Amino acid sequence: MSSGGDEIETLIATMARLPGLGPRSARRVVLHLIRKRAGQMAQLASLMANVAENARECLVCGNITQSDICPICEDPSRASGEICVVTDVADLWALERGRAFRGRYHVLGGSLSALDEIGPDDLRITQLMQRLADGTVQEVILATNPNLEGEATATYLSRLIVPMGVTVSRLASGLPVGGDLEYADEVTLGRAFEGRRVVHG
Amino acid sequence: MSSGGDEIETLIATMARLPGLGPRSARRVVLHLIRKRAGQMAQLASLMANVAENARECLVCGNITQSDICPICEDPSRASGEICVVTDVADLWALERGRAFRGRYHVLGGSLSALDEIGPDDLRITQLMQRLADGTVQEVILATNPNLEGEATATYLSRLIVPMGVTVSRLASGLPVGGDLEYADEVTLGRAFEGRRVVHG
Repeated sequence: MSSGGDEIETLIATMARLPGLGPRSARRVVLHLIRKRAGQMAQLASLMANVAENARECLVCGNITQSDICPICEDPSRASGEICVVTDVADLWALERGRAFRGRYHVLGGSLSALDEIGPDDLRITQLMQRLADGTVQEVILATNPNLEGEATATYLSRLIVPMGVTVSRLASGLPVGGDLEYADEVTLGRAFEGRRVVHG
Repeated sequence: MSSGGDEIETLIATMARLPGLGPRSARRVVLHLIRKRAGQMAQLASLMANVAENARECLVCGNITQSDICPICEDPSRASGEICVVTDVADLWALERGRAFRGRYHVLGGSLSALDEIGPDDLRITQLMQRLADGTVQEVILATNPNLEGEATATYLSRLIVPMGVTVSRLASGLPVGGDLEYADEVTLGRAFEGRRVVHG
């Protein structure tokens, strides 16, 4: 394939391997960038080079950041008595977008999974225990995914944490806002009943 | 939004503006790249910087390339007597992937369109006429899109080229291979009848 030159081909092939992109969308993106090259492509390249150079895990929570400690862990306005435990950095970012939580986070880096041979030692559990050791944390919110691995991870963690005298909670399960009851699966409907709240009386 | 740091945020925002990507997929791509940063992100950044620096239009055909003349125009094994006229670089690349054509190309850079105020002077038509002037080209294949603007552009070009004694052809219209007759639109079915070929007798 000699349509555009070797380097352009390599760029397309590299981008085509990114998640959510394929050969077709990679070509589209590269053509778009080349057409606007004065601005966007060079800017994107230097941004990427910087991030590649500087991005690292926050030493406290495991968030991805460009300094040793992430902006969330450094923010004095955030409650240091609450830690929300998430599977992944993507989950942390999603919760931040929702602005529902004003405490600190802890990123596990995965879920316990017998199938994928991921055990407690593969997750950032020791680091979590160290953060709980000095007694400033009153509540740990387990925001692992509401699936098999996520529930197993939450159960494992709560068995470790409850004996330390720390409150352990789990995010509510139920119908998603804007969803349709008719299309909800049975397990979600069951959870929605279990977690029902009294409105009046 | 201070989840990952300003530069990471800017990178995600820049990628989210690319065609086919949105905020969600941009975040996914950036997280993926950060996780594998030892390899992919730095490599992608330097590829992009190089392409941004070197990519330009081929002086002959308008293909995007990294030298003054593109590999196709420089390839002596390709028929110089046939020029395939395409709307866009993306179309040229698509035809090259199909390997159906072994001549040269000419990229117009758009279609005639009264609505978008694109006239003949906005397309690379003068350059095409210059390429036809010396008489080495025997056939011009108009591979503009089979839609209103593409047909108008093809009609306009054939009126210019036919008087020069050059054969002008148009890509066949008909049923796409692997398609289903039942789902073909009426115009395509009409074209397929018009262009039918005798198989036997």
